[in-house]
Amino acid sequence: MADMVRIIGIDPGLRRCGWGIIESEGNRLRFVASGTITPPVDQALSQRLVALHAGVVDVLDQYTPDEAAVEETFVSAGARSALQLGQARGVVLMTPALRGLLVGEYAANLIKKSVVGTGHAEKGQIQTMVKILLPTATFKGADAADALAIAICHAHHRARAAMALSA
Amino acid sequence: MADMVRIIGIDPGLRRCGWGIIESEGNRLRFVASGTITPPVDQALSQRLVALHAGVVDVLDQYTPDEAAVEETFVSAGARSALQLGQARGVVLMTPALRGLLVGEYAANLIKKSVVGTGHAEKGQIQTMVKILLPTATFKGADAADALAIAICHAHHRARAAMALSA
Repeated sequence: MADMVRIIGIDPGLRRCGWGIIESEGNRLRFVASGTITPPVDQALSQRLVALHAGVVDVLDQYTPDEAAVEETFVSAGARSALQLGQARGVVLMTPALRGLLVGEYAANLIKKSVVGTGHAEKGQIQTMVKILLPTATFKGADAADALAIAICHAHHRARAAMALSA
Repeated sequence: MADMVRIIGIDPGLRRCGWGIIESEGNRLRFVASGTITPPVDQALSQRLVALHAGVVDVLDQYTPDEAAVEETFVSAGARSALQLGQARGVVLMTPALRGLLVGEYAANLIKKSVVGTGHAEKGQIQTMVKILLPTATFKGADAADALAIAICHAHHRARAAMALSA
């Protein structure tokens, strides 16, 4: 079962949306690329969402991943910020699915457990472990590192996700 | 200033998304069409958002509106439902903007005031007034009527919206 699959992980956000691409083959992971999409903040919301969509489309065009993964948002903050995050998340979930990619969703503590080994990791620990699991990885900032962690989590759990989606 | 403009109003929702198309020419309004998009509930969230996007695209293709209007969501409910609504709203705001339409956003009480004359109208009053303002209107249910009310509000305020967007 050593088929190679290319995975994009995306950490949604309207101001900063992290993305990371990895390849998974058997139990081997390889870093491909990572970055952050930063839609302009001084435009109408609809235009900011178009910029977010266009940014994700650009990454999909350039790196042609086979599958996508997005963090399942835990809403601890107020309703207003949940609405804001939801708007970005809706666009981020839809864009890869629009071109036929499977989009896995994973809870934050499952992502942390996949990468750090515990569900209660700090941001810094995630970046350290992403660097260990993907030795050639380069990333600027926590958003891109989180996106790579989401992709790693999907690599570990994709068989289960595929089963759940076909159920 | 009697240029005719065709407006789509959209009431976002992941289960039921109302839409209504009107034409505005000077101070005259004309009903064109209305309906409700109902994405399947038994699929992955990303697929439901794709179905919502595709539904809006179909309406835009069929009726080619010039401008769009969406209700500015007031988040009174909990963070979890705000996140859910935000996801649908993100897709609904982005889809018309993606093809270059101006997308106006209006607060619920401004929409009610535009249609009923007061910011504290009941659902039933909105349907009654939409019927009076658009005598040829047909709509099934509150979502499509609300979408027509949003379009009417935009017809009344579009000059101001255009100014705000260009500011």
